[in-house]
Amino acid sequence: MAMWIRGVFYGFRKSAMIQLPYLLFLGDAPDQLAAKVGQGIKDWRPEHALGQLRLPTCKADLGLPDLTLEEGFASGAKTLVIGVANRGGVISQVWKQLLIEAVVTGYDLASGLHNRLTDEIDLVKVAREHNRTLHDVRVSNVDFPIANGRKRSGKRVLGVGTDCSIGKMYTGLALDHSMKNRGLKSTFRATGQTGILITGDGIPLDAIVADFMAGAVEWLTPDNDDDHWDVIEGQGSLFHVSYSGVTMALIHGGQPDALILCHEPTRKTMRGLPDYPLPSLEELRNAVLPLARVANPLCEVVGVSVNTASLNANAAENCLTQIERTMNLPAVDPFRQGADRLVEALIGLN
Amino acid sequence: MAMWIRGVFYGFRKSAMIQLPYLLFLGDAPDQLAAKVGQGIKDWRPEHALGQLRLPTCKADLGLPDLTLEEGFASGAKTLVIGVANRGGVISQVWKQLLIEAVVTGYDLASGLHNRLTDEIDLVKVAREHNRTLHDVRVSNVDFPIANGRKRSGKRVLGVGTDCSIGKMYTGLALDHSMKNRGLKSTFRATGQTGILITGDGIPLDAIVADFMAGAVEWLTPDNDDDHWDVIEGQGSLFHVSYSGVTMALIHGGQPDALILCHEPTRKTMRGLPDYPLPSLEELRNAVLPLARVANPLCEVVGVSVNTASLNANAAENCLTQIERTMNLPAVDPFRQGADRLVEALIGLN
Repeated sequence: MAMWIRGVFYGFRKSAMIQLPYLLFLGDAPDQLAAKVGQGIKDWRPEHALGQLRLPTCKADLGLPDLTLEEGFASGAKTLVIGVANRGGVISQVWKQLLIEAVVTGYDLASGLHNRLTDEIDLVKVAREHNRTLHDVRVSNVDFPIANGRKRSGKRVLGVGTDCSIGKMYTGLALDHSMKNRGLKSTFRATGQTGILITGDGIPLDAIVADFMAGAVEWLTPDNDDDHWDVIEGQGSLFHVSYSGVTMALIHGGQPDALILCHEPTRKTMRGLPDYPLPSLEELRNAVLPLARVANPLCEVVGVSVNTASLNANAAENCLTQIERTMNLPAVDPFRQGADRLVEALIGLN
Repeated sequence: MAMWIRGVFYGFRKSAMIQLPYLLFLGDAPDQLAAKVGQGIKDWRPEHALGQLRLPTCKADLGLPDLTLEEGFASGAKTLVIGVANRGGVISQVWKQLLIEAVVTGYDLASGLHNRLTDEIDLVKVAREHNRTLHDVRVSNVDFPIANGRKRSGKRVLGVGTDCSIGKMYTGLALDHSMKNRGLKSTFRATGQTGILITGDGIPLDAIVADFMAGAVEWLTPDNDDDHWDVIEGQGSLFHVSYSGVTMALIHGGQPDALILCHEPTRKTMRGLPDYPLPSLEELRNAVLPLARVANPLCEVVGVSVNTASLNANAAENCLTQIERTMNLPAVDPFRQGADRLVEALIGLN
């Protein structure tokens, strides 16, 4: 059923799944950092990334083949993903003609930017004419149920942070990667915009209506094989007053068997809240575990993922050693060391 | 600005405030219980309830003057409130002709039912013609900010429950009533549909998008006089997996100075979750207080509100005595005893 909701055209199907593989549009990215969504897709799902499409002024390069719209489509690309964030995170008018041509060529479009593909009247018009889908991954288009709390089969692990933006998504993707490398059954379950674009599926949890948050997480992580792990992307922090409700819904809707504490050892105050100090890892563990055990009485904290990007190698090693000793848990930086030791701790739960 | 959002016509102003006073429409209520929204308004805000309007088959009676639409309007009533819930909680076609006449007469309409006044095309048409407002209090029409966590002036008290539907709204209304009786400055801050209809204002927290929940609670409870108390209506429970995220947003967005624990001593399992036992009051206190102190380090649990409706007078007294002893806090049933002792505990905080 086609309808307009909040100015968004939901024309085609009730699913969050984006058609794979992708052609990554890097636009006029002024530097490599501006292409970080594209970089994330290339790093974590290289099999989804057939190539890159850059405007003449683009300064970013993912090291992928440069393809025209026609070349990408002929190679099998189904969706043109906006893999670039310009200043302000909005859809640039400079890109508009190319996006229209992409739809005419046969691509769906996917974007995690703040303004919506589906608010651009010319894009909507051409998408309707060519029966293509415009994915604004900041918007949910599924009617989620109220959470029922029923115990589900399969295993689940969730990252919980001392703060927002501390490495929870990276930790989850590294866990999933390490599990798959060992031949374990694992699915990364994206709950935010970047994660959805990387994996092609997921729920934009922060955009879901309050009553349905936990139900959406249950929907995202359904019954599965007993030896399958859902790696659920964490959001917010129980200690971040702006977003703690979202975190709470993940802890109860996800009914995790295992929690990974995520931390950044040099950060002093909560992101965007200069008057709020970071909690200690002990405070986080003590607050989260009793609440997690409401939904899953067997839940355990199994390890700590530490973002040591701002420490040199020696300081990072000292920091990890000290956290291991204090918390009596494996503590790793998955970027420096991979997530294998965290996966071993998960396996040890069984 | 007039616009359509989710099929809802927001024609007139950016405010949740419903025009007072009310004429209470009881429709064809099959029994007294069906008129409980009307009863709540009459019990807690008698000055808002000019009269009742009943169809010939109505079996409920609030003991208010029976007024026609014309009589009510001549007496000064501004809004016809649907104070009745029929089976299924939907707008009955039997009521339709009367609702249209009310709009023509000059009333706004207000409803907390599941289907929306603003989804009824004939109501929307007549409301536009007569420039009247249709209030669906399950829908929010304010653009709330992200919570900023800034310390606000004035005092705030929040009820937190061992379960949902355990008497948090009643406790809050009783606290507000007792404070006002003592000449204290107090405002009941409604966060649910029934509370909004009773007081004429508030936020439908369970209908707000996840990222903005805590910000909506901050918006609802702004800076105030140092000796003013916001009595914030609680929702859900930290221990109810379906709604705990909403509760968390109240705890952090409300930055309460005081918490009242709300409990029903005979309930064994969580509402709608037969496999989930109720937590003890100690478990609730231990989980909620560290989290509340993130937003307000001075927060204290000051008392227990116990819903003893299913106990006889003797058993209720024994129950309250035992809870007082165990928790070392005043424990009262505000329905049997009023909320004065809880108010004294609040005053004792200063």
